[in-house]
Amino acid sequence: MTLHGHRSVDDALRARAIEVIPGGVYGHTSASRLWAGAPQFIKSARGSRFWDLDGHEYIDLMCSWGPMLHGHHHRKVDDAVDRQAALVNCGNGPAEVIVELAELFVETVEHANWAMFAKNGSDAINAAIKLARVSTGKRFILTDEGTSPPSDSVSQGTRPSENRDYIVFNDLASVEAGFKRHAGDVAGVIVSAFGHKPGEDQELTNPAFAQGLRQMCDIHGATLILDEIRSGFRLTSGGSWEEFAVAPDLSAWSKAIANGYPISALLGTDALRDAALSIEFDGSFWMSAVPMAAAIATINVLKSEDGLNRMYTRGAQLVHALRTQARKHGLDVRVTGPVTMPYLKFAGDDKLALTSQWAAQMGIRGVFVHPRHNWFLSTAHTADDINRVQEASDEAFAAVAEQM
Amino acid sequence: MTLHGHRSVDDALRARAIEVIPGGVYGHTSASRLWAGAPQFIKSARGSRFWDLDGHEYIDLMCSWGPMLHGHHHRKVDDAVDRQAALVNCGNGPAEVIVELAELFVETVEHANWAMFAKNGSDAINAAIKLARVSTGKRFILTDEGTSPPSDSVSQGTRPSENRDYIVFNDLASVEAGFKRHAGDVAGVIVSAFGHKPGEDQELTNPAFAQGLRQMCDIHGATLILDEIRSGFRLTSGGSWEEFAVAPDLSAWSKAIANGYPISALLGTDALRDAALSIEFDGSFWMSAVPMAAAIATINVLKSEDGLNRMYTRGAQLVHALRTQARKHGLDVRVTGPVTMPYLKFAGDDKLALTSQWAAQMGIRGVFVHPRHNWFLSTAHTADDINRVQEASDEAFAAVAEQM
Repeated sequence: MTLHGHRSVDDALRARAIEVIPGGVYGHTSASRLWAGAPQFIKSARGSRFWDLDGHEYIDLMCSWGPMLHGHHHRKVDDAVDRQAALVNCGNGPAEVIVELAELFVETVEHANWAMFAKNGSDAINAAIKLARVSTGKRFILTDEGTSPPSDSVSQGTRPSENRDYIVFNDLASVEAGFKRHAGDVAGVIVSAFGHKPGEDQELTNPAFAQGLRQMCDIHGATLILDEIRSGFRLTSGGSWEEFAVAPDLSAWSKAIANGYPISALLGTDALRDAALSIEFDGSFWMSAVPMAAAIATINVLKSEDGLNRMYTRGAQLVHALRTQARKHGLDVRVTGPVTMPYLKFAGDDKLALTSQWAAQMGIRGVFVHPRHNWFLSTAHTADDINRVQEASDEAFAAVAEQM
Repeated sequence: MTLHGHRSVDDALRARAIEVIPGGVYGHTSASRLWAGAPQFIKSARGSRFWDLDGHEYIDLMCSWGPMLHGHHHRKVDDAVDRQAALVNCGNGPAEVIVELAELFVETVEHANWAMFAKNGSDAINAAIKLARVSTGKRFILTDEGTSPPSDSVSQGTRPSENRDYIVFNDLASVEAGFKRHAGDVAGVIVSAFGHKPGEDQELTNPAFAQGLRQMCDIHGATLILDEIRSGFRLTSGGSWEEFAVAPDLSAWSKAIANGYPISALLGTDALRDAALSIEFDGSFWMSAVPMAAAIATINVLKSEDGLNRMYTRGAQLVHALRTQARKHGLDVRVTGPVTMPYLKFAGDDKLALTSQWAAQMGIRGVFVHPRHNWFLSTAHTADDINRVQEASDEAFAAVAEQM
């Protein structure tokens, strides 16, 4: 395989960036979190591929950390965007699409009787926390460490955030202990739809955990909030815990729901409808119509084009190949989580040294994976893409094995 | 003037909305906050005009509550958007435009040495609070009531938000009292660039207030945070307090900076550069390139087309006409605030009964103003638009005078 060479244009732009942006680039897309020599800036993208500033092509296994469910520039999504944009995007009120999108969510996600829309996943999580507190009159929120950070982390810098306490994913005893520590004062439990902590093996959900959590929330009068921000539309076409017959009271969605257009959603049950009206839930761009049109098209494409099955098929092929190749090279590698959002980590690699080395080997072979965060399949990944990934991964395993 | 008639299509959609969205529509664009018979949904918009679902045309004096600085579908902004969208919007990292936009902000806003970008205005405010706390090691935030709500209002429902206390705009004694109440523990002061509380007369900034505030922050080692979310690019092309020679440590921007595309910015000084790297500041869509390209074009259009002077000219014409007409009709009306963001309220109209009645008379004459919130001029408003507004306002004053 030809290996990607130097990145001089990217380097030159980094030198300008560091002057006017703290750290050059902040947040999850900072190249400092990838591997030495990873590209920082993106020139263009199409389908399952993207290009850096120096012209190197990559197969995109991160899908922009989730949003690109159907790949870049999906025709049906972008057509819907163009149609709405020609009318109005940011108006003095919402457009008709807000009603169509709310109807589509209510029809698609079993527990949902209503929907509200915002921009960030954390907007929906914040609102869910407010709703839990308003409707129960209690204070504490129990949450697992994989969930999206609620924004009362504004107290960062002086002390740990208040009125929040942690549970362990898939561990009912930890939930029981949380309810005991804050007896009578737990407003809600926020839990991710599957277990994903950065840099750790992922965990599928134990159905008994989901069902037990629902029971405990009912017993203690607490609101069950499902964080679907990462999982939404990559596990099922509806709510991720429907297969366990567990209905949350609220669920928070974002990332993949509009194929890269900025929107998040809070879905809830009838019992919380009036409370939802009593909280502040508002933002300058939250009524913008274009991301709503994109979301409607994204969900419809997923359903009409059998998108989930296609992602599961490609994901299973990829996960199987990675495990087989690693064994062949004598490497002890764990590929964990849903096959549509796999994460590869070398066993015992607590500091992710080998995992980062392998990701770098993938990167210079034109496959973009993250050493610390789960990856994302999209419906744009073809069998040929996965074959090319496998060629790269075989060589990347060989390179790591040789360096060990 | 022909008056707008009934709104049957709007009504039919409201009936669908109420089934799947709490309250039908939530937040600041809810028609329940306008006047009886106001349209809830927007069909389309162009320049300074928009249309409701029943085909009624309006001159837009709200500019979508601020964002539409150059009117809907501005050619140069949308061309920049199309160029960037053809490359990449939501990628695995930022595009080159993030550096260009940060450079443009640093060049444009005097106090700014660096820029970071997010989606909501409150994202920038939250980050500013974190930064103030991290860099000072103190806890309390003093804020005037007109500033954008920081998100530790997640404690809503159980008790008032903690570690925040209020000052009165233009009242240095209230700031001094705040510093005294929390002696040695004030991390920062957040203040809006001019005084705007919903439903109240607006206040221009007293330069001595701005300068005194800066001095007090220096004396007490507190961070001065200027909330430019509403004011940004409608008072000056740089920071709103530059004319008073007052440089804040941080400023938060959103709304008008990208002509309706969703983005916010936090600008800061070199002294806070390292601290900025130490806080969480991250969101799924914050690196998206299209709103950044829109922001660059929006700022460049404002500068190159003398946008501020044009808005001031139209605004002054409008404010003068409203005052003159009201007097002519024997009405005691106050038009307050910057002429680019005026607010009209009948004197002593605490419950806004007359003000709402007047706004309704404007609405049925095809001019969209808000009875409780300041309005916004844009560079798309023509002299002819303002003339048409004046025709409507003259009739609206007459109608209110007759009903009194």
